[in-house]
Amino acid sequence: MKSVSVSPEGRSYSLPTEEDNKKEEQKLKELVSLQRKKGRGIVAVQGLGFVGAVMGAVIADSQDERGNPYYYVLGVQRPSERSFWKIHSINEGKSPVKGNDPGIPKIFHRIVKEKETFYATWLPFAFSLSDIVVIDIQLDAKRKGLGKGEESSCDLRFFKDGIEEIGREIRPETLVLIETTVPPGTTLNVVKPILEREFQKRGIDIQKHPVRLAHSYERVMPGKNYLSSIRDFWRSYAGVDEESSLLTEKFLKRVIDTKKFPLSRLSNPTASELAKTLENSFRATNIALLYEWALFSEDIGVNLFEILDAIRVRPTHKNILQPGLGVGGYCLTKDPLLANWSSKTIFDRKEGVPFAVQAVDINDLMPFHTLDLIKEALSGNIKGKKIHILGASYRQSVGDTRHSPSETLWKAIENEGGIPSVHDPLVETWPEVPHARIEKDLLASLKDKDVIVFAVKHREYYHLNPEDVFKSSGKTPVIIDARNILNDVEIKRYLSLSCKVKGLGKGHIKKFDTNFKK
Amino acid sequence: MKSVSVSPEGRSYSLPTEEDNKKEEQKLKELVSLQRKKGRGIVAVQGLGFVGAVMGAVIADSQDERGNPYYYVLGVQRPSERSFWKIHSINEGKSPVKGNDPGIPKIFHRIVKEKETFYATWLPFAFSLSDIVVIDIQLDAKRKGLGKGEESSCDLRFFKDGIEEIGREIRPETLVLIETTVPPGTTLNVVKPILEREFQKRGIDIQKHPVRLAHSYERVMPGKNYLSSIRDFWRSYAGVDEESSLLTEKFLKRVIDTKKFPLSRLSNPTASELAKTLENSFRATNIALLYEWALFSEDIGVNLFEILDAIRVRPTHKNILQPGLGVGGYCLTKDPLLANWSSKTIFDRKEGVPFAVQAVDINDLMPFHTLDLIKEALSGNIKGKKIHILGASYRQSVGDTRHSPSETLWKAIENEGGIPSVHDPLVETWPEVPHARIEKDLLASLKDKDVIVFAVKHREYYHLNPEDVFKSSGKTPVIIDARNILNDVEIKRYLSLSCKVKGLGKGHIKKFDTNFKK
Repeated sequence: MKSVSVSPEGRSYSLPTEEDNKKEEQKLKELVSLQRKKGRGIVAVQGLGFVGAVMGAVIADSQDERGNPYYYVLGVQRPSERSFWKIHSINEGKSPVKGNDPGIPKIFHRIVKEKETFYATWLPFAFSLSDIVVIDIQLDAKRKGLGKGEESSCDLRFFKDGIEEIGREIRPETLVLIETTVPPGTTLNVVKPILEREFQKRGIDIQKHPVRLAHSYERVMPGKNYLSSIRDFWRSYAGVDEESSLLTEKFLKRVIDTKKFPLSRLSNPTASELAKTLENSFRATNIALLYEWALFSEDIGVNLFEILDAIRVRPTHKNILQPGLGVGGYCLTKDPLLANWSSKTIFDRKEGVPFAVQAVDINDLMPFHTLDLIKEALSGNIKGKKIHILGASYRQSVGDTRHSPSETLWKAIENEGGIPSVHDPLVETWPEVPHARIEKDLLASLKDKDVIVFAVKHREYYHLNPEDVFKSSGKTPVIIDARNILNDVEIKRYLSLSCKVKGLGKGHIKKFDTNFKK
Repeated sequence: MKSVSVSPEGRSYSLPTEEDNKKEEQKLKELVSLQRKKGRGIVAVQGLGFVGAVMGAVIADSQDERGNPYYYVLGVQRPSERSFWKIHSINEGKSPVKGNDPGIPKIFHRIVKEKETFYATWLPFAFSLSDIVVIDIQLDAKRKGLGKGEESSCDLRFFKDGIEEIGREIRPETLVLIETTVPPGTTLNVVKPILEREFQKRGIDIQKHPVRLAHSYERVMPGKNYLSSIRDFWRSYAGVDEESSLLTEKFLKRVIDTKKFPLSRLSNPTASELAKTLENSFRATNIALLYEWALFSEDIGVNLFEILDAIRVRPTHKNILQPGLGVGGYCLTKDPLLANWSSKTIFDRKEGVPFAVQAVDINDLMPFHTLDLIKEALSGNIKGKKIHILGASYRQSVGDTRHSPSETLWKAIENEGGIPSVHDPLVETWPEVPHARIEKDLLASLKDKDVIVFAVKHREYYHLNPEDVFKSSGKTPVIIDARNILNDVEIKRYLSLSCKVKGLGKGHIKKFDTNFKK
């Protein structure tokens, strides 16, 4: 049977044959030759995932003051069953990534259908035609389980394969720019040796033609400013040598709004890699601290959210975050672990970054506190109880479910024999919990539930009237508000009529046990 | 022999006799009676230490739009040998606290000599004459040693004595406003019961006359804006009841610039107490994280300071701090410990705030890393070596040495047989290391030293020319720059001529081993 790749819309694409490869190679040659005549640089972007696809689009959309595009972009994606459809999707002018930024579908239409500056392909041959190769291969930490950060590692095999492939193809003068968040030290200690070895295999004198290589990390934020968070934001970068730094600087100045968001050049790529993991470790640590203070606040009857508002007025404390159901997403959950692994493995240090790792562990386990509250409210037994989770994504206003704390909670509920259900306005499918049916009618979804958990601060929930919640449920459910969504004043007005309230305004988890109707 | 109290200037004051007490009581009555006729409220401030003295001055300096002072302030200080001189000093128009804020001597002269709105006394009788009693009794954590945060406790005896004294004296309608940073829960669970008990002993019906009690914390920052950091800054506050909150609000609005720096009212005093300890735990945690990343950076050859500059451009990451020799001062070193102790003792919880405590432990032990670097540079043996510490205070631009990391380093050097010396432009005496002679001539102090440690970022050091450092020493000392003070570019220019440099620009500790002259 022939292998096929199926798009989320259900369209099938046969994976390419040898024959297809030959045709594609010819096509690439012709396309690039045409673009060269127009004076455009050629940029290949490897990895058309969450960052690569949009970064590629931003590059393809960049232009000089007279409106002439700087670059022609070849988006390169391996022809796997999981991802091959993306190539077709993009070449039809459609974004392979979803989100609620209206700029995303527009930019893909513009660069593919109007400017014709973006073409997606599966052929590594594209690298041989490019002046710059931007690497956005996804790289995750290999985790042993929640709260086991110290045992996490990083499997670089797939990433290394990608680098090797590039080393086999690129011309010696091509700049390789790594955007992937990697364990600090990867560019200098892993990527550079691979590229040099591949060059030497090909008979290239690496003294005469030193590899041109740099690291620069994006600071993408999914949500309604997805596109802008790539283009209109500060960047750090560093090359392995002066020439690589200069080439990177020139490239970023064309593609990113560096007038408004000046570049920071760092001394070497390891510094750039470390900076990215440190940024996210700073946030992870901040939330981990608040988690223990949330538990403390809850127990002693103070509202941590109110306190945080009072603290945040100080400019020196503006960045203090908020606790919630837990911490999810692709970055804060793994970056401290990548640094820890790098310290021990790439640099052979005895210690990693244990404080940052501990923060990840604490954050990992946060959803179990909500589970404990649910059990407490249901007198210990959640077997057969209907527990409804409002929000499956890892944060508000996004449909991204990677490492979502709602996933941890869902699985924990199932594990204890409870019956979880979920509503999310932005999540279409939940790959990590494929059997979950994402409900879309908010009020209907509340019906007949024993427990309702406010897990994500989606706008839809924010404007919810407490009375509606109780009426729609048709029961007196236990409500656990982990995101400080329900308005205390309104709740008091409504609940004073009919309910006894436990833990109102007590911070992290606002818990309304309404089983005590007068 | 009669007990005396000696001021830092060497003036002796005999402690008061019973006879003196009687005269003082009469004097207070007359003073207050006169002030009442002028329509002024009477405020007693208990504790004329670092905060109380200046807070008292700010209250005494407050006035309405027509320039009429709102309050007459009675500063109350126990007549101990250690502190009695303060009373005389203040009543001569001199500040009992030193600092480099030129506003401090001015305000004391103004309120004592010009406005005549401040009088210092030792008599608790002052409380009985006051409308408001502001409590600024110092309260420290009782520590078992560096890195032993979990074993720390809080001895409230002295604080409780002070409250009892107030309870015996005040009129029932007097507002007691606690400004001291206390373990969360102290106002409601410790102070309120004491005041109620004292009221009852005096036959006051506490149902008819509930105690008027609130907590509001200052955010004083020693240094050149010392005064302004009390007056022109945000405040949080909370009373034990609505009336107490209202009285506190009215008071703070008169004394603090609340138009520019709006007040935050919290739901109860425990919230206000918790907020203060959380603020400082946030900072302590932030630095602890950077400490482990500083070690990582140092080992892998990247400059953490450069990285932090690049991270800080992000508004969400602006509050990321810097590593250094260590963390000192009165707040960051103890506030997480007070919260931890409160959790276990006042609220009888099993767990405290272990993550925050761990941060304190990490920060406590930071100076030992510099010790390790010194030993490493001197091939393991520091016996008999002259090690010069630039800066004794706990931070730049202040003369405050409380819990200074330089103290930890000094003692560690002595412990290993090294010969420490110290320079500091702002510290006059070092109570924690009384045998240390604080040198004042910077360049002369460098002479003949084996190691020079840049410990504090005082302005004087910041403008130091690297060449001067080497020339003044007359040797080729090992230089350890824990505060990123010496300018890399200048160092390179100078050192390239004569020295081999180890670890240049490698972050936390910049280490120049100049023993390798060409």
